Amino acid sequence: MAKEITGREENYSQWYNDIVKKANLADNSAVRGCMVIKPYGYAIWEKMRDQLDKMFKETGHVNAYFPLFVPKSLFEAEEKNAEGFAKECAIVTHYRLKNDPDNKGKLMVDPEAKLEEELIVRPTSEAIIWNTYRDWIQSYRDLPILINQWANVVRWEMRTRPFLRTAEFLWQEGHTAHASKAEAISEARLIHDLYAVFAEEFMAMPVIKGFKSENERFAGADDTFTIEALMQDGKALQAGTSHFLGQNFAKAFNVTFSNDKNEKELVWATSWGVSTRLIGGLIMTHSDDEGLVLPPKLAPIQVVIVPIPKPDSELMEKAEEISHALKTLGISVKIDKDETKRPGFKFAEYEMMGIPIRLGLGKRDLENNTIEVARRDTKEKSSIGLDNVVPYVKNLLDDIQENLFNRAKSYRDSHITPVDTFEQFKEVLETKGGFLSCHWDGTSETEDKIKEETKATIRCIPLDAPEEIGVCIYSGRSSSKRVIFAKAY
Amino acid sequence: MAKEITGREENYSQWYNDIVKKANLADNSAVRGCMVIKPYGYAIWEKMRDQLDKMFKETGHVNAYFPLFVPKSLFEAEEKNAEGFAKECAIVTHYRLKNDPDNKGKLMVDPEAKLEEELIVRPTSEAIIWNTYRDWIQSYRDLPILINQWANVVRWEMRTRPFLRTAEFLWQEGHTAHASKAEAISEARLIHDLYAVFAEEFMAMPVIKGFKSENERFAGADDTFTIEALMQDGKALQAGTSHFLGQNFAKAFNVTFSNDKNEKELVWATSWGVSTRLIGGLIMTHSDDEGLVLPPKLAPIQVVIVPIPKPDSELMEKAEEISHALKTLGISVKIDKDETKRPGFKFAEYEMMGIPIRLGLGKRDLENNTIEVARRDTKEKSSIGLDNVVPYVKNLLDDIQENLFNRAKSYRDSHITPVDTFEQFKEVLETKGGFLSCHWDGTSETEDKIKEETKATIRCIPLDAPEEIGVCIYSGRSSSKRVIFAKAY
Repeated sequence: MAKEITGREENYSQWYNDIVKKANLADNSAVRGCMVIKPYGYAIWEKMRDQLDKMFKETGHVNAYFPLFVPKSLFEAEEKNAEGFAKECAIVTHYRLKNDPDNKGKLMVDPEAKLEEELIVRPTSEAIIWNTYRDWIQSYRDLPILINQWANVVRWEMRTRPFLRTAEFLWQEGHTAHASKAEAISEARLIHDLYAVFAEEFMAMPVIKGFKSENERFAGADDTFTIEALMQDGKALQAGTSHFLGQNFAKAFNVTFSNDKNEKELVWATSWGVSTRLIGGLIMTHSDDEGLVLPPKLAPIQVVIVPIPKPDSELMEKAEEISHALKTLGISVKIDKDETKRPGFKFAEYEMMGIPIRLGLGKRDLENNTIEVARRDTKEKSSIGLDNVVPYVKNLLDDIQENLFNRAKSYRDSHITPVDTFEQFKEVLETKGGFLSCHWDGTSETEDKIKEETKATIRCIPLDAPEEIGVCIYSGRSSSKRVIFAKAY
Repeated sequence: MAKEITGREENYSQWYNDIVKKANLADNSAVRGCMVIKPYGYAIWEKMRDQLDKMFKETGHVNAYFPLFVPKSLFEAEEKNAEGFAKECAIVTHYRLKNDPDNKGKLMVDPEAKLEEELIVRPTSEAIIWNTYRDWIQSYRDLPILINQWANVVRWEMRTRPFLRTAEFLWQEGHTAHASKAEAISEARLIHDLYAVFAEEFMAMPVIKGFKSENERFAGADDTFTIEALMQDGKALQAGTSHFLGQNFAKAFNVTFSNDKNEKELVWATSWGVSTRLIGGLIMTHSDDEGLVLPPKLAPIQVVIVPIPKPDSELMEKAEEISHALKTLGISVKIDKDETKRPGFKFAEYEMMGIPIRLGLGKRDLENNTIEVARRDTKEKSSIGLDNVVPYVKNLLDDIQENLFNRAKSYRDSHITPVDTFEQFKEVLETKGGFLSCHWDGTSETEDKIKEETKATIRCIPLDAPEEIGVCIYSGRSSSKRVIFAKAY
């Protein structure tokens, strides 16, 4: 009767795909590696976007929109950035189709409509934006520029998975310009903090805040700040990054300003982004073998009211009354009006969809002036007095939000394992997984070798890592603090 | 001191470009025909988008997201649609760049990374969406599907102008699927009405509601409903279209459903869209030689408070108090805190930006317990008692909204000219411009000839056109109702 999904223990990867499909979050498309985000999945993205947008605006940022295409000559201007994305970008070479003379009813690329210069479909927008900022910035009075855009980007990834890694994805990308290095670093840190607050307070997903090693840094950045989350299978997910770009793009695009002494200086930059990948993180932080589990703050529907065994006028009247009272408190409610499906089927559906609270309203409940309250996170049910149900539900939403965070944090905390030898590193990685906290000699060479042998990478160098004398687990060279390794999505 | 713009009488087209630039709405980009939407222009789009999105959701629609790319084989499946867009589409042929061996530091398209099948950057999404709907629709229980998406699209137009016609633009596109012809037609009409309400009540832009002649119909539609607005220079602007697509896409993509008798039927379709082009319509409906004029309902900043001659603590305290009271009423307010510019300069800036109401707060005003209220639409100023300013401003915003609509409607109404001969048609078109209401014999041939000789096209056949016996102004053949011709953007 209920939709069956693969258990997490049986096959985590298949479980993930099943949730995406059965909870109607996304679908495959006819385009390799591109997904269709279905209405329910998109509604979650809208909740995320609206909250982030509010936080960006509260910190002084404004939205704008820059072109989808980047001319090749601009794309290649910042060499490291170009190198980082060249191998995985979609390239527009022609601007017209024509009838195929050999295939009636078919079209072919018109060879006469070849572009003089190829256009890259943006994998990220630093190049097109910094080429524009050159015209916008003359004096220190034009700074800072604090712009964000909500956009689609394309990276021609070879192995794709819905939300986690797709050829096209939706994201926001902030691009800011500053008169000083210190101000640009503060901006990058401000957004880093903002992302962590969003992840923990809204997604209920605990994160480690740190910065990337040189190997893992964004192509073109001087420093990349990251928030790293831990999924239920012990793999890490990079959930958001904020880059201090130094003057690299200002150099590449010749963006200067006159300071207050009327001297020319290069502009300092940051960029930062989170994407629909966060939906993958949300799924793999909270969900279970019955389906999706959503934190109340990001659930498109927070409460569903199910009249039992099926809607009739008396039950509907009561349901409407409760719904109205909840909506007045800003809570989103759905009343199930379907008369064709049985309650058991409906319950399984709403569990699959991860709706935080289900209210079951039956004839006998009504007589007893009670209602059944079922919470999705723990699957506990209670019978609550009807007169009290509205404040009860309001508080329960907060409890669920908190419980999800605490549960995820307790799992995450118990999966940060300090290791002091490479043997121990490999053993913990293969048995327990999770974050490995260990000493590293600071070289890319060592990092590469560890990756080659174990597939684990440095997720971040935590901002709050204490100074501690130690030796690198791989090279035995000295080290002054522990870093976090993990296998990652 | 103030930014100078070309007068409308002098050169309307240059005036338009000046407004776009000087009001900081958009900028050119390095990509031919693609614009950068600057923060202030984007803020107007956000207001439009949020209002439309609310109206779509209130009428039962949900958002989703479909891929940017359409494989060529899907693109060409619906022949008329393909033919309509084939000549102006951006085509992705490769997925990788490599180092150019002949040019150090430069990249080139990697010939080994040629796609097996070319991808078209969506000019519209019927093809990719109907290819997906096939998998989503089995039974009449799966219908209707009422989906909208907010997206970017690309049409490789040869002549572009900011907002009005750009190679890439932002829009919403609704794509609905229905079990019956009648239901699909109702949906197309529902959205047609919704667009008219949005244009008139929010943009304060009067529109004629009608349907398109065959020549002007959307490629692949059985019927196109349109709202047509009139710009200040006497040219028409197609502001939004809603298409009844019949079963054309269902046929092309083999999308069928089992009806309640378990018989297979083809699905009925609609699609509908409005775009950033509306910002061009907004500019050319209300603005004047001092700059942009915005209807209060779509103004990102509705009220600006300017302390005169410059901010000091007493003035700022009062400004904050008024601002707070206005914000409580849901009015967006900016307080000018700039101490470096003179009031005259600031006033001109805010006029250029089209902020509906400016409050000038001076020392003497404060002593007299008054404040100067300047409205952007008529440029009238009044001195209002400080105790009364908040309700006064609230009412004035409504008055301005209404006045802008009435002013535009009066201009539009006086520019609908009935003409009965082709001589008269040509004369009115060249001297007065505007909408010409005349008889037409219903043939594409006549329409083509009139277009060839005059550049005027049939904007629409008005829904409310009365039955009236007449003869076609061009062919002399009989006709039963008048249609609307105009030169159009």
